[in-house]
Amino acid sequence: MDEVGGSRPAGTLISSPDITPEELQLAVRNHSMPLEALRYDITPVGLHYLLIHFDIPMVDASGYELSVGGHVRNPMRLSIDELMARPSITLAVTLECAGNGRARLHPRPMSQPWLSEAVGTAEWTGTPLAPILEETGVLDGAVDIVFTGLDRGVQGGVDQYYERSLSLQDAMRDEVLLVYAINGRPLPPQHGFPLRLIVPGWYGMTDVKWLRSITVIDRAFAGYQQATAYHHRTEAGDAGVPVTRMLPRALMIPPGVPDFMSRTRFVEPSTQEVEGRAWSGRAPIVSVDFSADGGASWVPATLDEPVSPYAWRGWTCHWDATRPGEYDLCVRAADAAGNVQPLEARWTTEGVENNAVQRVRVVVGAPVDRQLPADSS
Amino acid sequence: MDEVGGSRPAGTLISSPDITPEELQLAVRNHSMPLEALRYDITPVGLHYLLIHFDIPMVDASGYELSVGGHVRNPMRLSIDELMARPSITLAVTLECAGNGRARLHPRPMSQPWLSEAVGTAEWTGTPLAPILEETGVLDGAVDIVFTGLDRGVQGGVDQYYERSLSLQDAMRDEVLLVYAINGRPLPPQHGFPLRLIVPGWYGMTDVKWLRSITVIDRAFAGYQQATAYHHRTEAGDAGVPVTRMLPRALMIPPGVPDFMSRTRFVEPSTQEVEGRAWSGRAPIVSVDFSADGGASWVPATLDEPVSPYAWRGWTCHWDATRPGEYDLCVRAADAAGNVQPLEARWTTEGVENNAVQRVRVVVGAPVDRQLPADSS
Repeated sequence: MDEVGGSRPAGTLISSPDITPEELQLAVRNHSMPLEALRYDITPVGLHYLLIHFDIPMVDASGYELSVGGHVRNPMRLSIDELMARPSITLAVTLECAGNGRARLHPRPMSQPWLSEAVGTAEWTGTPLAPILEETGVLDGAVDIVFTGLDRGVQGGVDQYYERSLSLQDAMRDEVLLVYAINGRPLPPQHGFPLRLIVPGWYGMTDVKWLRSITVIDRAFAGYQQATAYHHRTEAGDAGVPVTRMLPRALMIPPGVPDFMSRTRFVEPSTQEVEGRAWSGRAPIVSVDFSADGGASWVPATLDEPVSPYAWRGWTCHWDATRPGEYDLCVRAADAAGNVQPLEARWTTEGVENNAVQRVRVVVGAPVDRQLPADSS
Repeated sequence: MDEVGGSRPAGTLISSPDITPEELQLAVRNHSMPLEALRYDITPVGLHYLLIHFDIPMVDASGYELSVGGHVRNPMRLSIDELMARPSITLAVTLECAGNGRARLHPRPMSQPWLSEAVGTAEWTGTPLAPILEETGVLDGAVDIVFTGLDRGVQGGVDQYYERSLSLQDAMRDEVLLVYAINGRPLPPQHGFPLRLIVPGWYGMTDVKWLRSITVIDRAFAGYQQATAYHHRTEAGDAGVPVTRMLPRALMIPPGVPDFMSRTRFVEPSTQEVEGRAWSGRAPIVSVDFSADGGASWVPATLDEPVSPYAWRGWTCHWDATRPGEYDLCVRAADAAGNVQPLEARWTTEGVENNAVQRVRVVVGAPVDRQLPADSS
């Protein structure tokens, strides 16, 4: 019997701050973006967050074809070469998991136990979806476009291929891409080789990886990942609101150096230039505020230009860290649609859309033993 | 106060099977290799395991120089261009974390909570270390060669740059490399850009990333990561035995498809070809045995050729999975030096060198609801 093979299904609520063996199995497979990687406009491959529901499928690109069909006039099959021969676009896009922040909720919904850093920004290269849908001739009465992945598994007692849908209107937006490259290179297996969907502004569950087919249907899609999972519900049994676009969030690069285990930060007394990134899928980021006292007082950060219309923007802020002591640093973003990060977590049954402010514990001037490096003698 | 910023130092023992918030902070940053990636001879970047003690440092390659000095006749400084102009070697090397398997121990030592898959195999390109040491003219009386990284943090109450040493004899082995590329590309930040050490056969703590200097010293190196951490101790206070070369381990690709949360596997009644990899840093792998009954009975697997003298070798085994039921699959490797994986975990104070056999729970023929993909209608 596998010591960590448990049976608590996804969505079970856990009151303990401790993480179950089931959650650990997900946490050691998937990973968030180490916060120091906020320094890069474009996240290097391998640092971008990853959430993979089932297994990474093995795909032979030479035999691969994307099927586009359903409620259409001319069903199509497209090879990767045919997709790459179409007009191409490269867009820098910030992706974030809808469950980012889940592990900070009490009680905690059983799923991937993210803290605050399930995010990344990549340059995705692909071809727009809308012209492909136009060429297939979507028929009158079309309602949803279903994107089916090659990844298969069981969730909520349902044996399924990972599938999500978009309304026809959302699917026809110019920025919706079928992508075959990341940061100028072919997709690696874990990012959806050979083809995935990218829907800028939306949480990451939308961006179906290892895309096998696109199916136009004349009714609302009722698949598990669309109709059951990924809803904002405050009580089990609520109809809930489907999760769609990213709420605003700002993250900082934690200043100083970390303790290995506690990740508490140590800073020598000094003036610090704190920096980070902020994004929203709802509207442009209009402000980022920084607090060194746990949110009691705030100062505005200086904003850089966004990396792209669909990507995060940098921010910087001076912090007078000359006085020894313990500090709780916070950062808070707001967007042009009036969305502001809350100080306290917003609880939902699945732990989605928790964009509470990041908090980083920093000790200024803590005396610790110093091991001089061997080359300093 | 950060909800997950705790204060339990590394090495504390935890009796609960549940994972503390401190361990979670490490688990969401670092990651192991998803087991389905055992299918690749060479692990794609982003799937190779990663353990980073402190923060990933930002290094400007144009200003970078490796310093080689200490107890030598001619101290040197080498730019990346100078290092790349030297003779180059590409070696496929399997790396594994010394703490792999730690989270399966009871009580559990507080550190990165690995399950069984903190491993990866990459093609590393670099230049041999030995000629560089010869050119610097190591003086009589040299004992240890210290490798200092640019990554700094606090561990065990000691503010330190990450540093490890090798004996002069170990450092002079032909296969010890200073590497600047992985899988044919420059090192990404998380793998040690612009230069790291690779010592084939040894556990991964040896392979200092973001290498800043190499210092020859005329005494045994007493740094934290060498003299305090990474020892095989069965009681606190033991002198312990330094961790060096990898013990044998075999891993299988879990058959079938996973349940999202429990990771229990589901297989339709069938004959399965189970496959995986096995490696040892002590001697060549000579056998891999497979069990479908939790280790009560074993059958030998068929071994492929090793990917390189320093990398894992594939294995395959038929499994008659025609009878519905629950199975505990196990796999066990042995090497030519007589090391065999134990069925039960071997406990050490730091949770190092636990190479107990992998166990995978599989349900054959389980009836679950089936959601047909949208393109099947």
